[in-house]
Amino acid sequence: MQEAPVFDETFRKEFENLLKWRRDVRSFRREPVDPRLIEHLIGLASLAPSVGYSQPWRYILVESEERRECIRQNFERCNQAALSSYEGERAELYAKLKLAGLRDAPVHLAVFLDSHTTRGSGLGRVTMPETMEYSTVLSVYTLWLAARTHGLGVGWVSILDPAVINCCLQVPQDWKLIAYLCIGHPEEDSQDPELLRHGWETRVEIGDLLLRR
Amino acid sequence: MQEAPVFDETFRKEFENLLKWRRDVRSFRREPVDPRLIEHLIGLASLAPSVGYSQPWRYILVESEERRECIRQNFERCNQAALSSYEGERAELYAKLKLAGLRDAPVHLAVFLDSHTTRGSGLGRVTMPETMEYSTVLSVYTLWLAARTHGLGVGWVSILDPAVINCCLQVPQDWKLIAYLCIGHPEEDSQDPELLRHGWETRVEIGDLLLRR
Repeated sequence: MQEAPVFDETFRKEFENLLKWRRDVRSFRREPVDPRLIEHLIGLASLAPSVGYSQPWRYILVESEERRECIRQNFERCNQAALSSYEGERAELYAKLKLAGLRDAPVHLAVFLDSHTTRGSGLGRVTMPETMEYSTVLSVYTLWLAARTHGLGVGWVSILDPAVINCCLQVPQDWKLIAYLCIGHPEEDSQDPELLRHGWETRVEIGDLLLRR
Repeated sequence: MQEAPVFDETFRKEFENLLKWRRDVRSFRREPVDPRLIEHLIGLASLAPSVGYSQPWRYILVESEERRECIRQNFERCNQAALSSYEGERAELYAKLKLAGLRDAPVHLAVFLDSHTTRGSGLGRVTMPETMEYSTVLSVYTLWLAARTHGLGVGWVSILDPAVINCCLQVPQDWKLIAYLCIGHPEEDSQDPELLRHGWETRVEIGDLLLRR
């Protein structure tokens, strides 16, 4: 039996740096990533908390060039549609933003929820069934942070039509797409979110987020 | 401009230990937690990724004893209802499980999604509006991991009726409850999830979760 770890101030500072420098990455260098590292990261992702210990996450490594092209085309279509919902300066700014690294990222990983898993026997999700989705989100974030500790960047692409993605990846229709991830070495590092740097949105002060009751 | 951190093998090993020993905690020691530490953790939580940089998370520190009692009563009611959905051995095992530390945890923190925030201007959520909820989940997990680096345990209570909780905490009806968290020093540490240790569910092999396309 291993002893429980005690984390010290040095680790905590470095962990906070990990949180601060994580980033949602959209510009990747094309150099490949060791497949064993990706499998290691997926193993860590499956240590995430899950409602009723249901472990409902399913990982699809998208390797085929045809399928990647299908994903890219869907992204382009959805992104054009989104662009057309903005006007004036917002539309100009939106058009300039790079919102996905689907062309350069060496690794594509789709993460789904298997909503019909019997694991967990329904524990913890009678009143909040959405906790199954949330568990899968926790798994995505575990992988994201772990990837960054290895110098890898992750970009979460949500400008996709989930029904098309299920079809394109040939996964069961009742699996729910939670995240489509681009993974690779980032072109650059930054302490600030890209949408903050490019003037899309500002940072909220913590005082505006915290209430007491 | 600070330089981007490079994480080494020592940090990575310790980070993996954090993931392995995190736990969903249901048994707390009653000793208080420094309120400045809780505010610090909430500050870190707001570094989480969010769709369109919408930062839609709202944190409610539940301090009043009356409101905490209201939450506990709702948990008891929902938990009884959940118990009645099981039969035989499963019902016996469920009844024995401790599923929340609402009585002993010194800190109660409710985390909501403000779905109507205009921040982010809708970016990234036309086709997957649920990414607003997911962003808030990422914030919860950031706080959870950061708390563990300080030796604090977090327990996510989902056996609650969200409509009742909004009312009990007097938050806007259109805020969505994402998580009700118990925070404090854990009674014990373990490398294994409680539902695994108590025989509710088994661990899934990574080979059963990973597909290639």
